Formats: sequence, C-alpha cells, structure tokens
Amino acid sequence: MSFTMGNETFTVAAKLFAQNRTRLVEMLRNKVQTGSIILLKGGIEQNRYNTDALDLPFRQESYFFWTFGVHESNCFGAIDIDSGRSFLFLPRLHPDYVIWHGKIYNEDWYQKKYEVDEVHFNDKNTIIETLTNLHAKQLLLLVKFLTFEGVSKFCFSFPCDTSILYPVMAELRVFKTDQELNVMRYVCKVASEAHKAVMKAARPGMYEYQLESLFRHHCYYHGGCRHLAYTCIASSGYNSSILHYGHENAPNSKEIIDGDLCLFDMGPEYNCYASDITTTFPCNGKFTEKQKIIYNAVLAANREVFKTAQPGIQWDEMHKLAEMIILSHLRDAGILKGDLEKMMEARIGAIFMPHGLGHFMGLDVHDCGGYLGDAKPRSTLPGLKALRTTRALQERMVITIEPGCYFIDTLLDAALNDPIQKKFIVKEKLDDFRGFGGVRIEDDIVIWANGNERMSNVPRTVDEIEQFMSERQ
Amino acid sequence: MSFTMGNETFTVAAKLFAQNRTRLVEMLRNKVQTGSIILLKGGIEQNRYNTDALDLPFRQESYFFWTFGVHESNCFGAIDIDSGRSFLFLPRLHPDYVIWHGKIYNEDWYQKKYEVDEVHFNDKNTIIETLTNLHAKQLLLLVKFLTFEGVSKFCFSFPCDTSILYPVMAELRVFKTDQELNVMRYVCKVASEAHKAVMKAARPGMYEYQLESLFRHHCYYHGGCRHLAYTCIASSGYNSSILHYGHENAPNSKEIIDGDLCLFDMGPEYNCYASDITTTFPCNGKFTEKQKIIYNAVLAANREVFKTAQPGIQWDEMHKLAEMIILSHLRDAGILKGDLEKMMEARIGAIFMPHGLGHFMGLDVHDCGGYLGDAKPRSTLPGLKALRTTRALQERMVITIEPGCYFIDTLLDAALNDPIQKKFIVKEKLDDFRGFGGVRIEDDIVIWANGNERMSNVPRTVDEIEQFMSERQ
Repeated sequence: MSFTMGNETFTVAAKLFAQNRTRLVEMLRNKVQTGSIILLKGGIEQNRYNTDALDLPFRQESYFFWTFGVHESNCFGAIDIDSGRSFLFLPRLHPDYVIWHGKIYNEDWYQKKYEVDEVHFNDKNTIIETLTNLHAKQLLLLVKFLTFEGVSKFCFSFPCDTSILYPVMAELRVFKTDQELNVMRYVCKVASEAHKAVMKAARPGMYEYQLESLFRHHCYYHGGCRHLAYTCIASSGYNSSILHYGHENAPNSKEIIDGDLCLFDMGPEYNCYASDITTTFPCNGKFTEKQKIIYNAVLAANREVFKTAQPGIQWDEMHKLAEMIILSHLRDAGILKGDLEKMMEARIGAIFMPHGLGHFMGLDVHDCGGYLGDAKPRSTLPGLKALRTTRALQERMVITIEPGCYFIDTLLDAALNDPIQKKFIVKEKLDDFRGFGGVRIEDDIVIWANGNERMSNVPRTVDEIEQFMSERQ
Repeated sequence: MSFTMGNETFTVAAKLFAQNRTRLVEMLRNKVQTGSIILLKGGIEQNRYNTDALDLPFRQESYFFWTFGVHESNCFGAIDIDSGRSFLFLPRLHPDYVIWHGKIYNEDWYQKKYEVDEVHFNDKNTIIETLTNLHAKQLLLLVKFLTFEGVSKFCFSFPCDTSILYPVMAELRVFKTDQELNVMRYVCKVASEAHKAVMKAARPGMYEYQLESLFRHHCYYHGGCRHLAYTCIASSGYNSSILHYGHENAPNSKEIIDGDLCLFDMGPEYNCYASDITTTFPCNGKFTEKQKIIYNAVLAANREVFKTAQPGIQWDEMHKLAEMIILSHLRDAGILKGDLEKMMEARIGAIFMPHGLGHFMGLDVHDCGGYLGDAKPRSTLPGLKALRTTRALQERMVITIEPGCYFIDTLLDAALNDPIQKKFIVKEKLDDFRGFGGVRIEDDIVIWANGNERMSNVPRTVDEIEQFMSERQ
C-alpha cells in the first residue's frame, strides 16, 4: 500500500521502505555472524508535560521511519539478516480505541499496508518469542537499552551489539534511492511554490508571522504537508542577521517596514522527508543599490557552488569557495581591502558567514552521516567549525547550498578590535551597512555523476525577483 | 511589560502573572511555616529525538507559565512566601547566542519584562545562594525531584515538601482572574472567527485537512496564535463519529463528499491560553432532514445546559441533563422507545455520547482541578466515567459545554446484544442512521453569579448555519 494525502499530493509506496530494508540487509550480511537480528524501537507519543494534549500529532523517529515507513507510535521492528525477513510489532490496541481513535485493523491489514513479512501485536513476550523462534544469536541495536515487555528475560537470552548498526544505517541514509528522491523532489516543489506565494503576498506593514502563516497554509492546503521540517525563520530588517530567528523568544513578531529585506528560511516535510529553502527579497519588491551588492555577492557564491558541486569535490572546499566569492564582492564594494588569500587565512569570511555552507538533508533537515566515511575531522576555525559535513560529494547525496552574508554587530566589533582582521576592513564603509541585516540564498540539490540537480525552484536573480514581485495584485 | 503579536492582537500585561503570584502567596501564607519558599522548574526545550530540529517552537509548562508568564525554556522560579518576593532564574546564555538567536539582555531587562522582584542568571550555586540568603527553612515543590547546578548540596540543606503546593496551585488555576478572562475571551474570538472562515470555505470535494489548514492559518495570520491548544479534529462523514479523529493514523485525510456533515473540533492558544470550539455543519450548506434531527437534539442539550449552568449546579448533573434531552429527541425521532428515566438507568445515553459533557479550560485545554475541592469521586458508569470534573460550578470557572450524539457501530452492536439496553432501541429505525457519523456542539463559557457568559460565538441554529453558508461566494 502507500501513503498519500489525496488530491494532487504525492503517493509514497511502501516499497520505498522495503528497498531501504533490502539495502540494509545487504550491507550487513557480510559484516555480522549468522543469527543476527536488527531490533529497532519507534518513537513514543509524548504529550505536553503532564497533560493529555498535543499541538501537532506524533511524528515518527527517523531511523525507524527509514526502515519501516510506519506512522504509528510505540512500535518495534525487527529484521532477520540471514533471511531478510522483516517483523513489525504494533501495540495491541484497547477495544475502546475504536470509539476514540478509529477502526482497529488486524495484523493482516497492517502487513499489507507496510509490506513487511510479519506483523504481530506486541503482547507480553511477543518480541522474545519471535526472536527465540528465529534462533537469534545476536541483536543489533541503535541504542544501549531497549525496554519492552519481558525485557529482563530477553537481556539474559541474547547478546546485544550497539556498535555495528548505527554507522551502517546512517551511511545508507546519506545516499538517497530513486524512490526517496521522488518524495524529496515533491516536497521541495511544495516548498518552492509556498515561498513564491509568500513573495507575492509580502508587503510593508505586515507582520513577519503573517507570512510564516501563509507559508504553512500553502504547504498544507496545497501540498498535504502537516509538519514543518524545522521552525520557520521569517525575519525582516535587522532580524535577518539572526541566524536562527523565529524561536519562542523571537517569534517572527516584528512588523515589516518599507525598505526591509525579508529572509525566509522555511521548509515543510512530506511523509517525514524534509525540504529546506531560504529566499531573500525586498518586502516592497525593489532592491536598493546596497541590497543588490550583498544579494549579488551571495547569489554568485550560491551559483558557483552549484556549478562546481559534483562527485569528488570536498564540501569544506565548497565552503571556502563561497567565502572567497563573497569576500571578493565585499572588496569590490569597498567594504574590505587587501589580498583575498590573506583574508581567507585571517578567517574574514566567518565574520560575514558564521554558519556552514550547507548540510545533508533527508528524513531530518540536518540529516545524519556528515562526519562518517571520508569526512575530515571537524575544523576548529571560525565558520568552518560550523560545517555539518566535510565529506567529498558523491552521487545521491542530498545537500543544501546556503551561503549567506550578515552584518552582525558583535562579530563586526570583534573584528575591528582584532589587530589582524581590522586591517582588511574599511570601517567607514562597513559602518554604512550596520543594521543592514543579512542575505541567505538556500537551495536543495542532489549530486549526480556529472554535476547535480536542483530540487528547489524559486525566482533568484534580482531581475527575476523584481519581475515576479511586480506581478502582485 | 507585556506580550503581544502586534497588529490587532491582544496585549497581555506581565501583571496578569504578578496577580497569580499574589493569589498564590495569600493562599499559602497561613498554611505553611515561616521560611517556606516555592521553587518551580520551567519546561526544557526538547528537539525531535536525537536531532537539532523542532517543528514548532518551545511551549512553556503550564504551572510555571501561570506563575511567571515566561516563554524562555530552562528557567527556574522562586517565591518567598513570607515577603512575597519573586525570583526568576534564567539560563546564562553563551555569547554566541547573539549570532544564532538574537540579542542577549541583562537581568534588569528581564526584571522589567516579567515584573518579578529579582532576576538572576543561573550560574553554579545561584539558586542555592539565593535560598540560603532567604534563610529558607522549607521548599515547596510540585514534583519529587528538581535537578539543577549544585543540587546535591541543596538537598542536604533544605527539607522539601511536595504535598502542599500542587493542590493549592491547581485549585487557583480553576478560578480565572479578570485579566486571564480577557485573554481567554480574545482567543475564543479568534477561534470563532476562524471556524466561521472554515464554514464559509467548506465545499464537497475538498479534503478535511485543507479546512484544518485554513483554520490554523486564520488563527495565526489574523490572531497571532502560533500554537494550537490541541490537535485539530477535522472530520467529515463517518469520521465525525471518531471522537479523537485527526491523529497521526487518521490525519484528516478524507475527501469531503457531498452530503457529509463536517464536525470540526479545533482551537488555538494565545500566550498559552486555550480555546476549544466544535462546529458541526453540512459541507454543502444544507442540512438533510436526518441531519436536522440529530443536530437539533444536540443543540437543545447544549442550550439547556447553557441556560442551567450557574454556581451550585453539579457538573455531572449537567451531563445527565444533556443525555436526557438527547434521548428524548431520539425517542421523538423513533430511534428509541420507552421510559426516559429507565433509559438513563440503563445508560442508553452513553451509547450515543460516550464522552463527558465538558471540561475546565485555561492554560491547558483540559485544565487542572476537575477532581479537587468538592468533586464527587469519578463514576464507574459508561459516559459518566469519562467526565473530567464532577464539581459544583462556581464563579470564574471556565468550562466547555460539548454535548454530542454519535452512531458508533461497535457501541450500537453492543447495545443491541445487551438484553436490557436493546429493549429501548428501535433497530430498523436505528439502522437508518448507521454510518451517519456524529454531531458535537461545543462552546466555552465562564460561570458568573447569575449564570454564565459564552465566550465562543459561531452560527449555531440550523437556520443560522444555512443562512451563513448561503452567503458563500
């Protein structure tokens, strides 16, 4: 069977997750002894504190979802590596479930729904008995402790390994299958259309959260996306230089003033697959000359990375490439002076872009595996230390390209007080940009043999944006 | 200072929480020994599983919010009962906070913002030192264990009481102040307007979640309500008989078919104060005769409870009153037969309304205190056992009135198999209503000396609804 929200939304076949299980079994078969069984625990629904209420419904844990595609909370799943057979253990529902939550289906129905080999309702000893029948000799776990009915007996019965499974699963999650990419293309399309709706609606005098609200509505109403992949950053004016603006103490609550740049970093998820797009545009539809300078610096970096990203390219090198381009634009604008190589050495780039250039994306917006495989150790240098991966790019990696340039007083002040860094800064020119805010341009791409594919699609050049926004009613 | 989302949204003064603290101190002063200090811990931000992402931002724990009105996570608060002085302990922010999350304010700024007596950043030993300086002899806690820096020293220093505080705070939360009621009137108004927008937009062929999306958008865009008080129930057709429809495995994903009734139970919160409104209406704007029968039965129950609810009235009596009215309508319609009193005795009402008539509402949608004070013990009888309170009504209680009538196959089948219950049922007539779904009509009221005030305001009678929906474009 499949997951869909009907209408024009995307249909995700249960086979996507069957394929993930097959990949997992194939990868592990030669690494583990006979009688090894994977045992995973799904997420548990958590209400707010000691209440029975929940704002948005339960969202499955990502490793479990990658393996089984199951939305229900409080499940377990197992895979027998020798045979490849998969087992799903769903909670036995109280008969009153039918009154409060809906129809109770039988094992057979769930077996067809999720296309696993066996489904069992998880009564006392169900998991133990299944493992015993499989003659399990070793359990592969993601976490140190799994608790369930009969766990004490179980602990005495089987040795558990918690070192083998994690790196293998995390590494598999880095490389997306065709089926996964189809879901991600869909959710990136939904996100792109919603960003465009926001650009069309934006006006001075609106509040930031009103555009966040419109974005959420567009994604859900038109795209069936009930959840967001992360808290919306809907910033304007100076707030656009606060990298993770939009949290509970800065809740997108500023009025947007004529002349403000809007920096909107927002992405929904569909069937748990994330999108992550940032648009930056003038709220009144026309860039000022100063805004053009910074915007074009960042866009040039975004485009150059997009052109360069392909298998074999180191991601930390892409970060430096983006820095270099932004620095050269800032030097052309007279804000910086001196030799670019020396600026790089003095980490001037990190003053204006303190975050990393991009990150893997998948079932989590900041997806796993960034420091596995061939990754270089995390840098300790400003900017570079914020990178969520240092790996060489490979086919089927999904990664964001999100260079930015921000005028953050505290970082500017520190630089002006630094004997080395201050030599590269033209203070009076820099002062013109105090309070400017920032620009970030973020796309979602997938790496292919000869380059990459951009899944996000929104107006990007100054001309495209001004043209697009001029068509507002 | 105050909380507001700007625009036309409501401004909540910090004084609201100062008044709550004053009430708390007054209530405790004669109950505890000299040197007693209240110590509360706020909520801690939890990301999704082992990731760094969050769908919606942090939402404060309700007891802590009631006392301090603080949105920040990871705080502590204390009140010295002898002097009434209040202390807020906020986390000391890392200097990089300014880059990622925004400006770092000083203690003075927070002191003015939250109008407490003292603010301290919570460094090692800050709380212990404050308590020591206050010559604390006893701490009043809500929970058994509070952990914070230096806690081991602290445990040896002061005896802790965990029995006094909870019932006093829960009981105070039951009775809303004028300031609290103003917030609740506002959020009920936002919810009412959003429900009306949904009624105006509803059409056969839409998906349930599209109307959920519109509701959420209306509440946030126009009302500044970023959070919901609970997961939206946006049900149509048979789904309207699934009481808590809308969760992750029944995610409002059905297409609405011409002829369906829509039952939409949805409410946002504003500054953590909840609303909770249910509308039931025909998706095409015109009730069928059968729909009118059930709708008018439930509306009559809603109205009669509204007329009767006043100080001194027992809430379980109101539940029975609602049952009686619904049963009499069902008898008039020929679905039931026999004596009403005997039906009540046989718990026929619970077949059609298995949930409770209503619940307290405040900072939680199902607010605390329902079984404190003069409450009768929870009943074990069908329907009545689901009541969230059995108390006598008193002034300033906020409670929902939400009678319902549902045709739930499993309950109908059980009744027809019950030798006593089946005698009251006209099977062939009942069979006409199989698959009908259900009706719920839910309002939010506050009890006053001479009756009550309804804070929700949506079209309610068949004529009002048909008239209102006929004005759709």
